[in-house]
Amino acid sequence: MKADTEGQKKIAPPSDIVVGRQAVTEALKSQRGVNRLYVATKDNAVGAIIALAKERGVAVDFVSRERLTAKVGGLNHQGVLASVAPVSYVEPEEILQRAAEKGEPPFILILDELSDPHNLGALLRTAEAVGLHGVLIPKRHTVPLTATVAKTSAGAVEYVPVARIGNIAQAMQELKKQGLWIAGADMDGEQELYAADFTCPLALVIGSEGKGLGRLVKETCDFLVRIPMLGKINSLNASVAGSLLMYEVLRQRRLAGRQS
Amino acid sequence: MKADTEGQKKIAPPSDIVVGRQAVTEALKSQRGVNRLYVATKDNAVGAIIALAKERGVAVDFVSRERLTAKVGGLNHQGVLASVAPVSYVEPEEILQRAAEKGEPPFILILDELSDPHNLGALLRTAEAVGLHGVLIPKRHTVPLTATVAKTSAGAVEYVPVARIGNIAQAMQELKKQGLWIAGADMDGEQELYAADFTCPLALVIGSEGKGLGRLVKETCDFLVRIPMLGKINSLNASVAGSLLMYEVLRQRRLAGRQS
Repeated sequence: MKADTEGQKKIAPPSDIVVGRQAVTEALKSQRGVNRLYVATKDNAVGAIIALAKERGVAVDFVSRERLTAKVGGLNHQGVLASVAPVSYVEPEEILQRAAEKGEPPFILILDELSDPHNLGALLRTAEAVGLHGVLIPKRHTVPLTATVAKTSAGAVEYVPVARIGNIAQAMQELKKQGLWIAGADMDGEQELYAADFTCPLALVIGSEGKGLGRLVKETCDFLVRIPMLGKINSLNASVAGSLLMYEVLRQRRLAGRQS
Repeated sequence: MKADTEGQKKIAPPSDIVVGRQAVTEALKSQRGVNRLYVATKDNAVGAIIALAKERGVAVDFVSRERLTAKVGGLNHQGVLASVAPVSYVEPEEILQRAAEKGEPPFILILDELSDPHNLGALLRTAEAVGLHGVLIPKRHTVPLTATVAKTSAGAVEYVPVARIGNIAQAMQELKKQGLWIAGADMDGEQELYAADFTCPLALVIGSEGKGLGRLVKETCDFLVRIPMLGKINSLNASVAGSLLMYEVLRQRRLAGRQS
């Protein structure tokens, strides 16, 4: 057996998982974002960990011990594994604070059921480029921050604050109370992105790759904008659509002197 | 052994490969685009196939018989395999003809060393949406049309003509002679995309994901345009950058009444 093969057993697990009862408990307690908890034991000692996960709004999956072992290689997982974000999530309030500190009208992105980590990575990369103040993603049914997202973002994940929300429609109502306008991207939108006014305090909502915006989310938007499409296909790649909208916001705000 | 397992041996290979001497020869002779030829025999009978591939500008890879067999499952490959495009490539001239037929100033995309099939698929999807007349891709060092590209394009590969070119700088010179302006996407571009005039007959050049435009290609462009970036990361996802430029062309042309 060669030295580097032997060494592999001692190599740390991928940076986006944490295993073992103590480590998983600490991850759940700390500010570090736990995306999901995987449990493969009925041992009572794990009950407290499950309770803590639920308290923090973290989804819990019950899996076989074999599947967990296959995921972590030779590590002693004690029946629990947490998939964690490569960077910490922030609180939604911090995103609005950031806009206030920069003296700019808030500019937020809300992602509704996006499922492809490459799309999230590309969107974060664009978000960083246009000076977006932060991204809101639901805790469920939407891809969380993972190592793949971080890699595809080309480092942007380090600079763009991402916060998780429980209920997307509720979060939208909350933003409205704070004076933001909510614009949803929808092919049936009443106006084209170029005709919309994006210089106001704004949250853009982008839907899932397959289905677009959910009904309730669509209804909660203040207005819907469409991207003109001249061909036969009726939608764009989600990261392309989101990026077109974000750059239109930047274009309008620079024209209006609202952003350098 | 279950029936469906037995059946697998008879299943047709993926639609983007062709095996066997007769079938590969026909693929090379037909209009169907062969992306690459794989050869695993020194048999003289294959010499004619290799000569035909070279005549058609198709790259030839010599591989082990084991690798070829692993690629095709139980099929009798006779030492030759061609990876073929899911749709036919067109000739570059057909793309300009298409613009003339539509009575629009030509609007072409040139991809220089793009390597990710997902990026090509997303770009084709945007190209279809903005009414682009066609895409030029070099025969070498650039991802060809594959099943993955077709899938990511959401069907756009069926509507957007794609032509392959041998030498990219030469093709750019040829387009200039035909009256097109060549705009390269480059972070050091002298003007922002919004300030450039995209209503003229136009070819946009997008570079590779990692390195951007090559030196010679950059020098052959008539002008370079940059996308404004306010953050610390200095580039966008290639399909996002290309899509932003394509939509800016559409926006300007519609404002100028050059495109519906």
